[in-house]
Amino acid sequence: MIGAIDIGGTKTIAGLADRDGKLLEQVKFESRTQSWELHFALCAEKLLGLCGKYHMDASMLEGVGISLPGMTDSQKGVLLYAPFFGWRDVPVAQWFAGRLGQPGIYVENDVNACAIGELKFGHGRAYKDFLWVTVSTGIGGAVVADARLVAGWNHLAGEFGHLKVERVHPRRCPCGQGGCLEAHASGTAIGKAFREYLQDCPQARRMLAQQGYPEDAYGCRMLALQGEKGALEIYRQAGTYLGIAVSSAVNLLNPGAVILGGGVGASLDLLEPSIRKVLEKEAVALAAKTDLLYTALGYEAALVGAVALVP
Amino acid sequence: MIGAIDIGGTKTIAGLADRDGKLLEQVKFESRTQSWELHFALCAEKLLGLCGKYHMDASMLEGVGISLPGMTDSQKGVLLYAPFFGWRDVPVAQWFAGRLGQPGIYVENDVNACAIGELKFGHGRAYKDFLWVTVSTGIGGAVVADARLVAGWNHLAGEFGHLKVERVHPRRCPCGQGGCLEAHASGTAIGKAFREYLQDCPQARRMLAQQGYPEDAYGCRMLALQGEKGALEIYRQAGTYLGIAVSSAVNLLNPGAVILGGGVGASLDLLEPSIRKVLEKEAVALAAKTDLLYTALGYEAALVGAVALVP
Repeated sequence: MIGAIDIGGTKTIAGLADRDGKLLEQVKFESRTQSWELHFALCAEKLLGLCGKYHMDASMLEGVGISLPGMTDSQKGVLLYAPFFGWRDVPVAQWFAGRLGQPGIYVENDVNACAIGELKFGHGRAYKDFLWVTVSTGIGGAVVADARLVAGWNHLAGEFGHLKVERVHPRRCPCGQGGCLEAHASGTAIGKAFREYLQDCPQARRMLAQQGYPEDAYGCRMLALQGEKGALEIYRQAGTYLGIAVSSAVNLLNPGAVILGGGVGASLDLLEPSIRKVLEKEAVALAAKTDLLYTALGYEAALVGAVALVP
Repeated sequence: MIGAIDIGGTKTIAGLADRDGKLLEQVKFESRTQSWELHFALCAEKLLGLCGKYHMDASMLEGVGISLPGMTDSQKGVLLYAPFFGWRDVPVAQWFAGRLGQPGIYVENDVNACAIGELKFGHGRAYKDFLWVTVSTGIGGAVVADARLVAGWNHLAGEFGHLKVERVHPRRCPCGQGGCLEAHASGTAIGKAFREYLQDCPQARRMLAQQGYPEDAYGCRMLALQGEKGALEIYRQAGTYLGIAVSSAVNLLNPGAVILGGGVGASLDLLEPSIRKVLEKEAVALAAKTDLLYTALGYEAALVGAVALVP
């Protein structure tokens, strides 16, 4: 049995899984951001609680994979920097190994963990070269080439969300630069565009309110699925920006598939036509035929990814 | 001793080298494009001629590396497509193995061969993650991640020259698309911009003629080095476009270095300031510190690359 912990920006999940990546147990709790030591202690406690159900202690697990919300040196087992938490140089593997009495601790950045999960348990089994893209509040990416994750020179590869896709009317990105994919096609960006649209279109606003959907990317999806023109246009535009970034990646890396995860990634049905349109214009012809897929790992991709970290 | 053949668009070079990539002998001849069999026969004859100087036949070589001007399946030893020649599905390794009586034939696309040469004998020894960019008549690229060449799903990775860098005033590219880096920053593009400039600036034209330089990227370089404003501006603009494409690659792949080869790549001195300027604006901060280098392999990079193909 394998232990897994996915530490996200707002919630953390601890779980147990079998060697095929099937989750057997999981427990979700709030991420406490003040102190990594306090939060890690809570994670360990929750994981040990799950182990207890099987009359095991953590040392009896085959290993524990941990997915982390920031730049990670997986070789050294260190979380280098988690911007949202403000944590720096946290010796994750060492800490958990000590607390759990389990030497097999494997850590990775959450987006990379998703890609490794997809490689081991998902669509990646059919593609040794693929690009993983999380489209959620923000946008992250990971590159898999010849069945290996591309880490980069200082663990920074896969910054897909900061590819520049708009130079004429660039929107400010939280990273401080302008025109990033994340500023134009993330859940945050779609939600913002949707609320601007609702200001100008009381009819759409009424429709949304009557059906009780929120004024965000999800609400926009629900109207788009009913054919509401403005909502459809917002997804078309986001897909166009995604297509520009995907085309760059396709030209550079020639992936067999681009695999989307994340809440907005689940709207691949709405995004795909415009992504394809741009691919035809901007990617080298043979490479443009890359497959576009939604993750096979479902909503808990990063947790399944954490499971996949254990060799 | 290692045999090497570099088949280029206009010239071919056959050579012999030692295991450290040092060229001992080389002979250059015209590339005949009508029939691959005729041209290969000439290549074999030239290589055997060099072997004769050492009283060897080709079977006594440790292997022969061949760099090819098109899409190559290096595993199968097949040249899939050479657009300039119109050759398709040529069984290169099989043909040379038969003709030379040497089973160790290793083939690779010329740009990839350069990257492998750089990895084995050049700057690549200090960087396991780098991007190779040939800036010559056209622009090609190759990605090395964790000391391995990224081939891609169907041998198409590294199409750096077809990253889109201009959407407002896109120039037509030979590939059929618009706004490609190759259409804006290759030797061909620089030469074209330079000739347009000379039309409007008789003073620069006189300066060029007096010094006997050609009306191409090289002539433009020679004026730029003397501080001629228009010529400098043309290189600044090309550097800006290169910077846009390099920034995309840096965000996706976080290479330790971007290594330029090719005739225009040798003008890195003129290009670097504007590449850096764009990198600061468009690449994730830590990754933007990537080194920019001119190839350590010199003018015969693809021939040295062919040597490097022999394991």
